[in-house]
Amino acid sequence: MIIRKAVTEDWPRIWPFFDQIVAQGRTYAYPLGLTRQTGRSWWMEPSPSHVVVAVDPGPDGDERVLGSAKMGPNRPGRGAHVATASFMVDPGAQGQGVGRALGEYLLTWARAGGYHGIQFNAVVETNTGAVALWRALGFEIIGTVPEAFDHAELGLVGLHVMYHRLS
Amino acid sequence: MIIRKAVTEDWPRIWPFFDQIVAQGRTYAYPLGLTRQTGRSWWMEPSPSHVVVAVDPGPDGDERVLGSAKMGPNRPGRGAHVATASFMVDPGAQGQGVGRALGEYLLTWARAGGYHGIQFNAVVETNTGAVALWRALGFEIIGTVPEAFDHAELGLVGLHVMYHRLS
Repeated sequence: MIIRKAVTEDWPRIWPFFDQIVAQGRTYAYPLGLTRQTGRSWWMEPSPSHVVVAVDPGPDGDERVLGSAKMGPNRPGRGAHVATASFMVDPGAQGQGVGRALGEYLLTWARAGGYHGIQFNAVVETNTGAVALWRALGFEIIGTVPEAFDHAELGLVGLHVMYHRLS
Repeated sequence: MIIRKAVTEDWPRIWPFFDQIVAQGRTYAYPLGLTRQTGRSWWMEPSPSHVVVAVDPGPDGDERVLGSAKMGPNRPGRGAHVATASFMVDPGAQGQGVGRALGEYLLTWARAGGYHGIQFNAVVETNTGAVALWRALGFEIIGTVPEAFDHAELGLVGLHVMYHRLS
């Protein structure tokens, strides 16, 4: 697995699993009814956002996109020393450590960029795999906003604010 | 004091105290170096954001803008049932209950709009007047992200996530 900066041409290969994950309604509060065109601006953000893809190079060089992450300052101005990030892993590539590899990439990227910490603003509390992964990587739960996410199957569930100090 | 929907012509009267408050560096993480033109899009947001001004009608009908608030869904899609808001009160109009009046307006507006709760994402912990006001209006501190705000005088201080359940 290789993690590299995403380029414009990657979006058509990110969009199918981005769309699937948003439609499942278990993890992300993106606008409903996005299309491949309108969804792009929600993920492929310009600098200072940094968007990467995790790819399987493939035996014949025909790489497959397994997941993607975007990262950047959580707030402008006097909050720009704290980073944030979002992650999407193709459901067809789960269990291969893609999320962990992207998370470790984030930590390296944020440390190299001189960030003071990393904040996740909205981790769905029932997304236990993600919560466990972020804990394993050193994030702690700062607090949980009750019933802030309308889960497609479970109804209203909480959103964790998570934080990892870096310096 | 009257609270009414802000119109385009209000921005030149909001901008001076918006700019002063951001420049003081004690309460908000807006981009540095905003101008009256570039600052406008950060405050005068289109629908579904709802922007209001608190005005003193004045004896001669020449109203003065004392403060402003913007409110709307905190997240799109599966998070849109929780509202959020931001407040700016002209430092020259402090102590007149402008913040409280805008806060009470927010509660009425969010209840009328069917919101499930209201979340403040980033209340500077050393902004004790605001924290006390929000507590008095029924908000609780969900958690505090340490050192997430670079205060102009105090250095790195925490940002509270605050929440008020409505239904």
